[in-house]
Amino acid sequence: MSGGGRDDRSVAEKLFAIADAFAGAEELTLSEIAARAALPLSTAHRLVGEWTEWGGLVRGDDGRYRVGMRMWRLGVREPTARRLRNAAMPYLEDLLDATGEHVHLAVRDGLGVVYLERRSGEKAVAMVSDIGTILPLHATGVGLALLAHAPADVYDDVVAAGLRRFQQNTITDEGELRRRLAEVRQTGIATSVQALTRGAFSVAAPVRDATGEVVAAVSIIAHVERLGEPQFGLGVRIAARGISAALGYRAPGT
Amino acid sequence: MSGGGRDDRSVAEKLFAIADAFAGAEELTLSEIAARAALPLSTAHRLVGEWTEWGGLVRGDDGRYRVGMRMWRLGVREPTARRLRNAAMPYLEDLLDATGEHVHLAVRDGLGVVYLERRSGEKAVAMVSDIGTILPLHATGVGLALLAHAPADVYDDVVAAGLRRFQQNTITDEGELRRRLAEVRQTGIATSVQALTRGAFSVAAPVRDATGEVVAAVSIIAHVERLGEPQFGLGVRIAARGISAALGYRAPGT
Repeated sequence: MSGGGRDDRSVAEKLFAIADAFAGAEELTLSEIAARAALPLSTAHRLVGEWTEWGGLVRGDDGRYRVGMRMWRLGVREPTARRLRNAAMPYLEDLLDATGEHVHLAVRDGLGVVYLERRSGEKAVAMVSDIGTILPLHATGVGLALLAHAPADVYDDVVAAGLRRFQQNTITDEGELRRRLAEVRQTGIATSVQALTRGAFSVAAPVRDATGEVVAAVSIIAHVERLGEPQFGLGVRIAARGISAALGYRAPGT
Repeated sequence: MSGGGRDDRSVAEKLFAIADAFAGAEELTLSEIAARAALPLSTAHRLVGEWTEWGGLVRGDDGRYRVGMRMWRLGVREPTARRLRNAAMPYLEDLLDATGEHVHLAVRDGLGVVYLERRSGEKAVAMVSDIGTILPLHATGVGLALLAHAPADVYDDVVAAGLRRFQQNTITDEGELRRRLAEVRQTGIATSVQALTRGAFSVAAPVRDATGEVVAAVSIIAHVERLGEPQFGLGVRIAARGISAALGYRAPGT
């Protein structure tokens, strides 16, 4: 887009490119926004002005921009995240009480996974990800739990996009990924050990809605020293079962 | 804007008018969006198409539009809501455990008040408001707690906008509002009884950040039959103190 060629994007596309600049940053200067959105400074200035006029972005006293309350108010109208969070919160609290680690509710978003909610104990392991961050499906417990139940074309696209290595333990071989996903479907639990974050492992279980479709996953991320403790797998499985029931799922034979 | 005159709005303003159509609705048809945004159907169709292409809105199988996960992901980047929620969540859980009613964290947004977070007991009173809804400052406990500590021009604007009556008990007289706000500043607690919702009362207390500024309020909304019970005022005051401390506030003399 940048680098000399004509910019064929519509005004809307340029506005959205500005919004997307904040996907991985809490605060940006106007020049940073312009660079990330591949816009001339003058265009960025005008369109950022439109965003701030509306309240989707706000300009701090230091001249840096961040996402505004208006965008937050609109975002929380997203109905799936609301419904899932409401059903899951009591179970996440119980998991937090039982483990003192990070507990998450996550959904698949395209070829990635996003935490809808996190509750964390004070001594939980240090992590870079946060609510709203997109994480890789093949390198997280929630990602494996969701990918194991995703349509076949999602699996194909994940493999075609390449299994990026984040740590020594990341699954990068398609054969291994296929075996691990079969195991997830068989056991109902996905475990991912130091695949994305050193010193941490995650255990996840899929959540189903009233139609039986897997719509979310619940996980614990804990210090790797605690890998052998039995309550993590048990905890996420019971929590996932409870959240699924709250969403109207009835397991076959019940 | 509608009704014959020329539409001087920029493309950005029209896009934002479409987004604003979802402030009070979970799902809208294209005609409903066009009507709410005061746009011709053809313009609405084109711009809604831009929103859905990006993912800020999604179109369901029934043809109705709702806010999309992309907007949610962006909204959760809003730094104030994140910081306040993280500090408040353990206290909200404790208040919920102690009361079994609705517990809230709220901030002022212009001349209204918005719940950033809610946790609710199973037997809590029925309410129409939800996270992200804008509520009136003069008719809610959190609103009175925030208005009591807001800049004088906010007070003037609230009075100038008119004190709308929602229930028989709503404060509609400026003299009474002034007295009640003075009382809030003196006691540290704001109480609002059946002012917005019949059968419910709310008790709220202000939360301060490291600079001493009131940045949020914590509240309980409970069945009006429980109005005399002492734990509500005590609970919100202690919770507000704890959240303020977590935000770095040190009370004078401590």
